[in-house]
Amino acid sequence: MTKRIAAFGEVVMRLQVPGVELLSQANTLNYSFSGTGVNVASALARLGHTGFLVSTIPDNALGDAAIANLHKLGIDLSYIYRSGEYIRMYFLENGFGVRPSRVTNSSRQETSFNIAPEATYDFVDIARNIDVVHFCGITLAVNESIRNYMKTFARAVKKNSGTVVFDCNYRPLLWSSQGGYEKAKLHYEEMLELADIVMMNEQDAMFVLGMNTKKEEREAQLKDLIPVVANRYNISVIAGTHRYINNDNTHSLRGFLFKNQTFTFSSVITFSVYDRIGAGDAYTSGIIHGELTGFAPEKTVAFATAAGMLAHTIVGDTPISSERDILRAMTETVGDVER
Amino acid sequence: MTKRIAAFGEVVMRLQVPGVELLSQANTLNYSFSGTGVNVASALARLGHTGFLVSTIPDNALGDAAIANLHKLGIDLSYIYRSGEYIRMYFLENGFGVRPSRVTNSSRQETSFNIAPEATYDFVDIARNIDVVHFCGITLAVNESIRNYMKTFARAVKKNSGTVVFDCNYRPLLWSSQGGYEKAKLHYEEMLELADIVMMNEQDAMFVLGMNTKKEEREAQLKDLIPVVANRYNISVIAGTHRYINNDNTHSLRGFLFKNQTFTFSSVITFSVYDRIGAGDAYTSGIIHGELTGFAPEKTVAFATAAGMLAHTIVGDTPISSERDILRAMTETVGDVER
Amino acid sequence: MTKRIAAFGEVVMRLQVPGVELLSQANTLNYSFSGTGVNVASALARLGHTGFLVSTIPDNALGDAAIANLHKLGIDLSYIYRSGEYIRMYFLENGFGVRPSRVTNSSRQETSFNIAPEATYDFVDIARNIDVVHFCGITLAVNESIRNYMKTFARAVKKNSGTVVFDCNYRPLLWSSQGGYEKAKLHYEEMLELADIVMMNEQDAMFVLGMNTKKEEREAQLKDLIPVVANRYNISVIAGTHRYINNDNTHSLRGFLFKNQTFTFSSVITFSVYDRIGAGDAYTSGIIHGELTGFAPEKTVAFATAAGMLAHTIVGDTPISSERDILRAMTETVGDVER
Amino acid sequence: MTKRIAAFGEVVMRLQVPGVELLSQANTLNYSFSGTGVNVASALARLGHTGFLVSTIPDNALGDAAIANLHKLGIDLSYIYRSGEYIRMYFLENGFGVRPSRVTNSSRQETSFNIAPEATYDFVDIARNIDVVHFCGITLAVNESIRNYMKTFARAVKKNSGTVVFDCNYRPLLWSSQGGYEKAKLHYEEMLELADIVMMNEQDAMFVLGMNTKKEEREAQLKDLIPVVANRYNISVIAGTHRYINNDNTHSLRGFLFKNQTFTFSSVITFSVYDRIGAGDAYTSGIIHGELTGFAPEKTVAFATAAGMLAHTIVGDTPISSERDILRAMTETVGDVER
Amino acid sequence: MTKRIAAFGEVVMRLQVPGVELLSQANTLNYSFSGTGVNVASALARLGHTGFLVSTIPDNALGDAAIANLHKLGIDLSYIYRSGEYIRMYFLENGFGVRPSRVTNSSRQETSFNIAPEATYDFVDIARNIDVVHFCGITLAVNESIRNYMKTFARAVKKNSGTVVFDCNYRPLLWSSQGGYEKAKLHYEEMLELADIVMMNEQDAMFVLGMNTKKEEREAQLKDLIPVVANRYNISVIAGTHRYINNDNTHSLRGFLFKNQTFTFSSVITFSVYDRIGAGDAYTSGIIHGELTGFAPEKTVAFATAAGMLAHTIVGDTPISSERDILRAMTETVGDVER
Amino acid sequence: MTKRIAAFGEVVMRLQVPGVELLSQANTLNYSFSGTGVNVASALARLGHTGFLVSTIPDNALGDAAIANLHKLGIDLSYIYRSGEYIRMYFLENGFGVRPSRVTNSSRQETSFNIAPEATYDFVDIARNIDVVHFCGITLAVNESIRNYMKTFARAVKKNSGTVVFDCNYRPLLWSSQGGYEKAKLHYEEMLELADIVMMNEQDAMFVLGMNTKKEEREAQLKDLIPVVANRYNISVIAGTHRYINNDNTHSLRGFLFKNQTFTFSSVITFSVYDRIGAGDAYTSGIIHGELTGFAPEKTVAFATAAGMLAHTIVGDTPISSERDILRAMTETVGDVER
Repeated sequence: MTKRIAAFGEVVMRLQVPGVELLSQANTLNYSFSGTGVNVASALARLGHTGFLVSTIPDNALGDAAIANLHKLGIDLSYIYRSGEYIRMYFLENGFGVRPSRVTNSSRQETSFNIAPEATYDFVDIARNIDVVHFCGITLAVNESIRNYMKTFARAVKKNSGTVVFDCNYRPLLWSSQGGYEKAKLHYEEMLELADIVMMNEQDAMFVLGMNTKKEEREAQLKDLIPVVANRYNISVIAGTHRYINNDNTHSLRGFLFKNQTFTFSSVITFSVYDRIGAGDAYTSGIIHGELTGFAPEKTVAFATAAGMLAHTIVGDTPISSERDILRAMTETVGDVER
Repeated sequence: MTKRIAAFGEVVMRLQVPGVELLSQANTLNYSFSGTGVNVASALARLGHTGFLVSTIPDNALGDAAIANLHKLGIDLSYIYRSGEYIRMYFLENGFGVRPSRVTNSSRQETSFNIAPEATYDFVDIARNIDVVHFCGITLAVNESIRNYMKTFARAVKKNSGTVVFDCNYRPLLWSSQGGYEKAKLHYEEMLELADIVMMNEQDAMFVLGMNTKKEEREAQLKDLIPVVANRYNISVIAGTHRYINNDNTHSLRGFLFKNQTFTFSSVITFSVYDRIGAGDAYTSGIIHGELTGFAPEKTVAFATAAGMLAHTIVGDTPISSERDILRAMTETVGDVER
Repeated sequence: MTKRIAAFGEVVMRLQVPGVELLSQANTLNYSFSGTGVNVASALARLGHTGFLVSTIPDNALGDAAIANLHKLGIDLSYIYRSGEYIRMYFLENGFGVRPSRVTNSSRQETSFNIAPEATYDFVDIARNIDVVHFCGITLAVNESIRNYMKTFARAVKKNSGTVVFDCNYRPLLWSSQGGYEKAKLHYEEMLELADIVMMNEQDAMFVLGMNTKKEEREAQLKDLIPVVANRYNISVIAGTHRYINNDNTHSLRGFLFKNQTFTFSSVITFSVYDRIGAGDAYTSGIIHGELTGFAPEKTVAFATAAGMLAHTIVGDTPISSERDILRAMTETVGDVER
Repeated sequence: MTKRIAAFGEVVMRLQVPGVELLSQANTLNYSFSGTGVNVASALARLGHTGFLVSTIPDNALGDAAIANLHKLGIDLSYIYRSGEYIRMYFLENGFGVRPSRVTNSSRQETSFNIAPEATYDFVDIARNIDVVHFCGITLAVNESIRNYMKTFARAVKKNSGTVVFDCNYRPLLWSSQGGYEKAKLHYEEMLELADIVMMNEQDAMFVLGMNTKKEEREAQLKDLIPVVANRYNISVIAGTHRYINNDNTHSLRGFLFKNQTFTFSSVITFSVYDRIGAGDAYTSGIIHGELTGFAPEKTVAFATAAGMLAHTIVGDTPISSERDILRAMTETVGDVER
Repeated sequence: MTKRIAAFGEVVMRLQVPGVELLSQANTLNYSFSGTGVNVASALARLGHTGFLVSTIPDNALGDAAIANLHKLGIDLSYIYRSGEYIRMYFLENGFGVRPSRVTNSSRQETSFNIAPEATYDFVDIARNIDVVHFCGITLAVNESIRNYMKTFARAVKKNSGTVVFDCNYRPLLWSSQGGYEKAKLHYEEMLELADIVMMNEQDAMFVLGMNTKKEEREAQLKDLIPVVANRYNISVIAGTHRYINNDNTHSLRGFLFKNQTFTFSSVITFSVYDRIGAGDAYTSGIIHGELTGFAPEKTVAFATAAGMLAHTIVGDTPISSERDILRAMTETVGDVER
Repeated sequence: MTKRIAAFGEVVMRLQVPGVELLSQANTLNYSFSGTGVNVASALARLGHTGFLVSTIPDNALGDAAIANLHKLGIDLSYIYRSGEYIRMYFLENGFGVRPSRVTNSSRQETSFNIAPEATYDFVDIARNIDVVHFCGITLAVNESIRNYMKTFARAVKKNSGTVVFDCNYRPLLWSSQGGYEKAKLHYEEMLELADIVMMNEQDAMFVLGMNTKKEEREAQLKDLIPVVANRYNISVIAGTHRYINNDNTHSLRGFLFKNQTFTFSSVITFSVYDRIGAGDAYTSGIIHGELTGFAPEKTVAFATAAGMLAHTIVGDTPISSERDILRAMTETVGDVER
């Protein structure tokens, strides 16, 4: 039973130095187009749903390139609007071993998405046409106008009995010029009240929502705080992960799902990492898919964790694994060539 | 003392996505030409022998490309014939970590090799000019006409007191449309009766030849079944490997050789894998080289296992290590830059 | 006023040697997915219409790659079906100066499109949902089953008062094993009787339809034969081009349109050629767009010829120029950098 | 006798699609760093002078890349400052034949250069250390603060008896949001009064300075207006070019120099174009070099025109020909391989 | 009737900057292996003969790379010896338009070929096994030891009634440190006396052999001097070309053949040039093929000129056109894609 | 407090096969310019000092490329001279897993650096302008003339109260043709007597200086011999590393510093290796920077070891880490993407 899911967010151009050279050594870049909304819409399209992106893109050659690449990802572009001149960009230098990867951002001001005028989106109409909407904290940090769009859109969806997903995704840098946690907290609370499914963990509760716990272990903190959050903001499902970076550069991931007052955890899985960016969105998409499809919590959290794991092995920010790929990754061990 | 070895088999075009992108992400392919026969002829040419390939290749630009690349591998092309229009192809997407590599095949029907008319090959003449001939189970699976060529060729070689090598190399997919194990068994038995050196392990004995054992460990099964096979089909040498894929994506390999009623095993060696395809052919070539050169069984099996290991570190299907490279890999540990 | 146009045809994988090396020199290929139907659907999508492709694609990694790339071209894939294992391929070596480009085809047998079973397409349903359908002679040459699909589809469209476009596109090689012109003629005549808009020139009339003329100049032959064709098969619009290849490797193109018993010609335009394949489909798309949009014949033929010219300057088979690009190319001379 | 020349201007990152694909087709970009100041400083460094760039660059990985590449061009970076976060970028798609090249700009707001605070530059100190300063109209269009820096810097140089070069380089787009020609004229006049050597032609006189002429031919207009400009603003040397784009995509260039009330013209030279951007800066640098070295006007203008021509044959915006290269290009015809 | 032709000469590694960047701009090189002997042996192998190279190559990884690439060109390597450490290299920067291509050589001293000890080659044995030997003036310039090898080899071939081909190919730079024309003349005369087929034109006669003519036009000089040379040194066939480089960067070529006291000329053909180096060797190979195959002089010279022309359109120094390709190029005009 | 450091040594062109192909498989090379002197001058420039290279480079296109790339590394080229024709080159094939990387050298004879005439360098003048000079054992092995330059230069620096650094860097191959350890020892001793800071470990003491120890463990040998060396040749600081190559292809490094009769050791750090060549020069530069900046021995040796470690993660021979990068690598564990 496929659903119609819309993600609201900015399209970002990723410009990546191939291999492991630095920007000051290389002279070539690979580019692609991503963003949390792009990643979620694409991932859910691969899982068999219709994934819309609701966004604004410049009406020039860069915008055309974005359009072609979003099409390629299988996203439905019925709610993409064209205006403005600029697209957000980030430059990525791959790390190696002890040397971490590094991101350099272009200006976020004046981008088509950030200055799209109010008349751009007819949220009431879109809300009528979808089952689920997805928002994230990165978008919430943009500016007052975008925050209003988010809340208007979320309310329209709720009015149509749709499901609202909110990924906390707090990035301190984005709020620092706007007054930091204080200001963020207000807007996060508004979104949490509108949300049915929330992606977060204990750190969001402590840092963004200012909650306290006397526990010291991450899992204990989680078990202490997440039920309070679910209760306070009336949230059906809260899910998230704990990530550990090991000395041999592998990562370990453990997913959790809190629903009906009960925690469900995935096992801890450990894996090599090719492309870390966007893997969180794969996890989110796995949770949404599990919930929409009516998986048992154990299956949902295992599916989402496997989806997150696979996303680390795929080139680019955007998850493109099929349900079959993910189900196999849940059960199989490392295998020989498939031939 | 160099020998003249001919391998009979199809030339296959390998089209590989560079890096670890999927076919649906990339837009570039690297291509090369391989196949079990190509790999064995090339590997033995590097080891100082004359390696012939006996095959048919299309008479067009793709065939010209195959010719140029087989030349580059150092194979003697005196018995390459040109007719037909199509060459077999396979597409390879590299895996990463938990995501396995993936092969997609083009049509095997109508290829130049598969439809080469009977008059193409003068097996009697070729047999007079060579010391050893190599066949494999992949070729045996093609069609009735090719199976007849193999048996005719093998008999011609035996008549000239040459050595027949047969690599069981059973691929279930290739037989499924022809009646599966039942049908395959008949042809395998014919080849085993003609063969002096056979590459196989206990799984071939059980699945293809339908043999039974009450043992449960692979090594015990091997020790149970291989002597029976050698005896039943009057085979001088049976060799093969056990492969283990470890959690950290390294592979472990242990070679064995059964000759004069005695098993000889290599130590288990563990190594990182760059390109897995064709590594089995490097092992086969090591066994053939050891036998032709008169190595002691211990040296032959260690040499073949090291040859197999090195083939995993080389780009492409086709082994290209020299005897010096392999001998050094048998004795040395991981080293610093050679400068 | 945008229209809904469906093209029926095979998706073909193009594997091109980059630069001007031969297949026997290079080791890298660029790949993309095209085909007459792909080209027409994509071109019309760029011109603001909804361009559907009606086709069958293998359900494997190559098929996934085709899907991603058709999406990227902006084609609507609602009528793409997945079955079978193989996709048609052609290899392209670029020429240079006096050395012509060269195409090598893979097997056309057994491709997903060519063996798609009858139940695959619900042509009645598709016909209800579109305004125009496009067919071409390359598809007509495939096999009896495909020819039946084409005729069934064309009749369904006519029944719904839709427009049928047929591009003669005769390729002798494709018919040679089926009995050549004799057999082709029958099927071409059936298609011409169903068609409203036909792409052809005097050579198709003479060679495929077996018509005669005493004129010796191409233009005179054209003026002699095309009105007869239009009349005999009751065709509203016949359009096509004359191409001349000049000594300095530029090409010259002159478009014509026959409608309401009147010929309209474009001026002869001369231009450098980067990628010749698919340029004819750009011309076709220009004619369709002109007719659908209600351009005057002079504008339609000039527009189509400019679209054809631009397609020679674009990488790949598939036209991707916008209406704005084409209108500008109709009026402007060679320009400086646009900055 | 080498001189010390400083150019004041922004460093721009050029991101170019390799080959002739569009941004919506490709996924790779080549990047380099240029800008009028960069081009002039580099060109004069190749001609044996010390070429300084006076500019501000972000203090991040992109800035580091700019530094490395300006170093590579041989520019003296003693007056490069690091602050701010953003660098100006432009994307370049190469045209082919009738399809023109296309530039898409990133945001010019907020770049390190455009918002560099007043304390950044000690123009008095720099002026003491140089013989010549170069400015251009693109920089003049930035904002009021940058315009003040230019005038302050120019006055400091004049006070030290240095030479001020000003390249009019009017770009309508850059002034359109600031009030257009009206506003530009005021600032241009201020710069012309400070300048000793000015790069311009009759179009700058007419459009920017609002001058009139009854002549209709470009050369006649030039001869009418340039002496008036030289006289009115007390300019020693005015130089520029007329460019013609031919139907076969070659360009023709004719340089002129007005000095001591006399015009000197180069012959018209015609050549193929590989990379057009930055060629004007090569011409400017040739004029500056000729004047600094004391060439006769005939030699200066021929040298500058040849420098401009060569710059069209070099990859990238930035001229890198040596004096020897340019002198040879002035005299020789097209040659065979130099070996 | 295929022949056995050996070429004696050095293998040279060509390192070419891709595209049209300079060595100081790029960071990548394409490499291949060529040399006059390589080119002639490869070209004749493509024309159906057995082409041997007689040479010495270092016994290291670079030598292995040379071996693989000579194999790929289809050359018979039976007379390749391995000793020494170094291979000659040249770096190639492609020109564009008015900017010529540029060659930078590595050291020619100490290369494996140049210091190969006398015992390396058994010329008597080789001579018995071949029909034709090819030498060139570049090899003659190396050193006294190599000159002795050439003369010994040529005498051995003549003793076996083989044909000796000598290509004058005078390069002033190579003789300058050895005493120039004076010294060269002596060795050239020795080679001419041993040769049956000689490649040269009037400039070799004047500059190397010191002959005089009062004619001023090239053709008149040629007609004046070549018969004298043929007579003086008793040469059966003298052939060569006149090359003209046109203003639009096309080249024109006219071949001639002097045999039986008669000149035969090809028509002047004009063509675009992709890779000029090695094209002279294609012409030579065409002449040898025509003579060996018994073509009429008109066909031989037309064939050789077409072979030379095609070699300009092929990537790399080494001609790889088939007889079919060349015959077609002799008759056809520029064509459309072959598909 | 930045210092002025000059390194005396040859510029070497590195030609590296991309990926892990062998030279006999690939056809592309990446090139860069390095050498011990280049590496040290560049590394110290990144650490905020002025890094001069004192060297001679050919006056041709390869030399121009070297100049551009040394500029790019931020080295001050005031003491680079241009003469001669050849540059030293080495070819690098990357290993994988058990297959080691492999270096093939071009001829070292006749390079511009090795034959630079005595008048090239004014060491007295250079010595006046610098604080520190760096030499290494590779340069000492070149020839008598270069050895004399080194000693003259070292004495000039000492006369100006500058610091002399000498890196023993003994390469047996380079001395073998000159009489081996015997001859080397004399020159090493001369350099040690002139040096203030020496890079070496116990193996240099035993093999080059012929010293004996009864200890069997490396650390015990080190502690036995280094104090004797420091005392005998009156050296202030001796530093070096012990490297271990682990079975999983990681390397472990432990740095030591002997100063004021006291050993200071870094901890053993273990890391993945991307590019091993030049990492020793990063360690040396770290020691020099620590000493020049007045770090405590513990900080110096930890800093140098971290610098060495980071150099293994950077593409190319030449270290380019900033002080900030190295300080962070000293304290932090493996991290997530920096964004």
